[in-house]
This record gives sequence, structure tokens and C-alpha cells, in this order.
Amino acid sequence: MRIIVVGVPGAGKTSIMEEVSKRVNYKIVNYGDVMLQMAIGKNLVEHRDEMRKLPIEIQRELQEEAAKKIGTMENVIVDTHLTIKTPSGYFPGLPKWILDEIHPDLIVIVEAEPQEIIRRRKNDTSRKRDYETYEEIEEHIMANRYAGFTCSILTGAPLMILQNRDGMLDLAVQKFMEAFK
Amino acid sequence: MRIIVVGVPGAGKTSIMEEVSKRVNYKIVNYGDVMLQMAIGKNLVEHRDEMRKLPIEIQRELQEEAAKKIGTMENVIVDTHLTIKTPSGYFPGLPKWILDEIHPDLIVIVEAEPQEIIRRRKNDTSRKRDYETYEEIEEHIMANRYAGFTCSILTGAPLMILQNRDGMLDLAVQKFMEAFK
Amino acid sequence: MRIIVVGVPGAGKTSIMEEVSKRVNYKIVNYGDVMLQMAIGKNLVEHRDEMRKLPIEIQRELQEEAAKKIGTMENVIVDTHLTIKTPSGYFPGLPKWILDEIHPDLIVIVEAEPQEIIRRRKNDTSRKRDYETYEEIEEHIMANRYAGFTCSILTGAPLMILQNRDGMLDLAVQKFMEAFK
Repeated sequence: MRIIVVGVPGAGKTSIMEEVSKRVNYKIVNYGDVMLQMAIGKNLVEHRDEMRKLPIEIQRELQEEAAKKIGTMENVIVDTHLTIKTPSGYFPGLPKWILDEIHPDLIVIVEAEPQEIIRRRKNDTSRKRDYETYEEIEEHIMANRYAGFTCSILTGAPLMILQNRDGMLDLAVQKFMEAFK
Repeated sequence: MRIIVVGVPGAGKTSIMEEVSKRVNYKIVNYGDVMLQMAIGKNLVEHRDEMRKLPIEIQRELQEEAAKKIGTMENVIVDTHLTIKTPSGYFPGLPKWILDEIHPDLIVIVEAEPQEIIRRRKNDTSRKRDYETYEEIEEHIMANRYAGFTCSILTGAPLMILQNRDGMLDLAVQKFMEAFK
Repeated sequence: MRIIVVGVPGAGKTSIMEEVSKRVNYKIVNYGDVMLQMAIGKNLVEHRDEMRKLPIEIQRELQEEAAKKIGTMENVIVDTHLTIKTPSGYFPGLPKWILDEIHPDLIVIVEAEPQEIIRRRKNDTSRKRDYETYEEIEEHIMANRYAGFTCSILTGAPLMILQNRDGMLDLAVQKFMEAFK
């Protein structure tokens, strides 16, 4: 199975993915990392920071090549985004042609309450994140749901909405594991 | 016209479909029944209960063959589901390739208040249904809306959201009938 | 860039489009006008009012030809609708094949509070509009969001949700301008 896992920053998808990957012996593949490795292999960049500065067409090519590579992998959890907030609005992380290459068997959206997400972001000093209001986070969570159902209809993959509430990681992992039965 | 009618269990789509089909002389076709008849015809199963035990690839083939058959029918109301709740999440009842075969002229989502749906399910002792909370039913109703607009954009068919509130079946049928004018 | 701008009547997309088009020297193209010009050129109609009376297949052909024409234009803001309320439900203004022809670089949804929209519609005596309740307007606004994310995934274009609140047109224009940086 190829499983796509998405969620707004602070929803806590990393903790869930790590626990699930251990239990089912799946590899976690970060979409952005695959793109980066490809760019380095082509001598386009040396560091991650340079990726954003590449011309948009080059970025799209890397995005598609990465999708092709991931589409050949078995038993992987793909760590990526359904929608990415940019100054131009919500950028689709999984447009149709990318989905066609990955052809996932399951899409999992990890969610939490906006209030929990704000708190988690505040406490996570390891990553630099722009401050977002409750309403902005809520809008982003909903945007992922809307986009998620489109992805499901385009690919035929079921869509799991997973609540990752504070102190209830076990429950989230347990629900995720239902997909492997 | 081929009309697809969907709705969460307890929304009351059966009553609406039956009344509308009588008025316009349309045949009601249950998608699951068409799949079952095909499976019986191929000696794959004898009873409905065995359908779920078929390998997923066989189920998908039956789903597609059923769509092809329905796509040739005229003046039918297709009774089916946009999203089906499973342990792996919301399973898409109408993925893109199925929509391409059916090419519906109208998609109707039948809705009711979650509270009404809970009450109707409780009173309907003829069917065995898992208990769902208000929030779960609400999420499912919204999931159908998200999925419904994707189906509309993929097929070009308009999407009608029909409220089937307690004691207001006539109003719902009347609104549905507007599509035939 | 080809930018699609949508919004329910009264959201105030015209004011935003006019200001943005001035600043970036983009042409505003009204989708309905392009269709009308094509219909007039083919001697199908003489006036706009006759458009609705054309057979639906002819309307669809005009819709597609208009999309092809718009798809060749550069630096345009396309004034159109994601969903159009009809007696048959929400009619998709941008079905997949139309999006494929236009291949937009950005989709902007202009929104306002339903209460503001009701007030603006009341004050706008130049256009004849059916009265809609708060709930109906809210549903339509949300319908556009659901449809918008489908369009984004099908085209790869980012989706900007732009709040055009009373007295805050400048802020909306400023946010829109971010897409040109």
C-alpha cells in the first residue's frame, strides 16, 4: 500500500506516522525530501533553502519526477501536503497529475482543534512558523477536507479523517491501524 | 435523464425517489443491486452477504461493469452513495471512472438534520445500523457535499441539495420536480 | 497570467477586479460576454436575454468555444462563476473540460459576510436579484469553496480566498496584489 498522510503544521502527523510505520514496517517518505534529492542529483541546488528559488517550471518538473518515483514504491507512508499556504493562496500539493503518478491506496488527514494547534506551535521552538489565528487554522483544516475528497474521487482511495487530540495519540494510531486489517 | 440520488442512511432518499419516480415515470436502479445481479450471473456469489467477501479487485470490476450498464439506461434514478463509511475512512462510491461511465445529468443529495436522522434510525427497526453520534452524522453529511461538488465539476451535472425535513416530504419532492421543467 | 475571479452576487468582485486590473494592466474578460459575442457572430441570438432560451447543447458548445478563446489570452482576469444557482441545483460554471481549456494560473474567490451581501443586494437597485436568506447565501459561499478546491486540484492553480468586507476594499486589493509579486 501507498498511504498519503497530510495535515496542517502542528496537527501532529509526524508522531502518528512514526508510530504506525513502526507497527506495520512501512517506510516514511517525505515528498519534499525526494524532490530535494532529485534536485541535488541534477546539480540544481546544494541545500534545501535553494529549492524555493528555482524557477516554478523546474519545481513542477521535480514535483512530477518525485511523484513518479514514489509511485513505484511499496509499503510507504508519504508525508506531504494537500494544500500549502502561499501569498497566492492555497497551493495544491497533490494536483491531479501528481495523484495519477502516486496512485495512493489511502489518504489520511490528521486533524486537531485549532486551539491545540496554536498551543503546539507555540511550544515547538525547533521550527520557525508564522503565527496564524484560530480562524486561519480552521480555514486551512477545512481546505484540506475539501481538497481531500477531490483526491479521493480522482484516485478511488478512501479518505480517513483522523483526530489527533492532545493526549490521545494512542487512539489516533489505533484508528489508523484499522486500515491494515 | 440519468439522475444520481445519494444521502446518508436515514436522510430518507427512498421516500423521495419513490414519489418522484412515480410522477415522472422513471425507474429506480439500485447500484448495489446491479452489482449483485452481475456477480450472481458470473457465479461469483449466491447471496448479497457474500459480496463484501469478494477480493477488492473483483468488487472494483463489478462496480465498473455496473456503471457501464447504468450508463446505457434512460430515465433512471440511480440509488447509490457518494461516500461510504468504512474502517479505512470514507470510501468513494462514485470515483472519476465510474462517473465517466454513468455520465449523470443531475446529482441530488438528500439531507436532513443530524438529530432527525438519529431519530429516524432509532425508529427504523427493519435495518441494522451502527449507532453514530450527532457529530459523526454531521461530518458524513458534509463529506457528501464536498464530494458532490467534485462530481459536479467532473461531469458537468448540476448538484441539487435537497432538505428532507420531518413532515416536509412534499416540499422536497416539489423541489426535486423543478429539475424536470 | 490568466486569473479566474468568482464570487456570489453581491460579494463585490467587480470593484476588486477593476482596481487590480488597473494596477497590473490586465484586461477583464467576462465569460458570459464572450459567449454572447460568439452567439451573435453565429446569428444565434441578437440580445443577451435570448441566450438562456438556446438549446442546452448549443449553450454548452458556446461555453466550450468561449473557453478555448479565453485560453489563448494573456494577462486577463476572467469574470465568471464557479457555481450558478438554478432550479436544478448548483450548475457548475467551470466543469473539468472548461478548466482544461482555460488552464488558469490562479483562482480567486471573493467572499463577504452573508449579512453584508444581503445589504449590498438591497442597495443595488441597478440589478434585479432574487431575494435569498442568510442561510442560502452562506450555503452558496461554501459551495464555491468546495468547488474551488476541486478546480485547484484539476488545474494546479492556487486558490485565493479573498474577504471583501465592508469598507475594506483596499485590504482585499492589497492581498490580491500579493499574487503578482
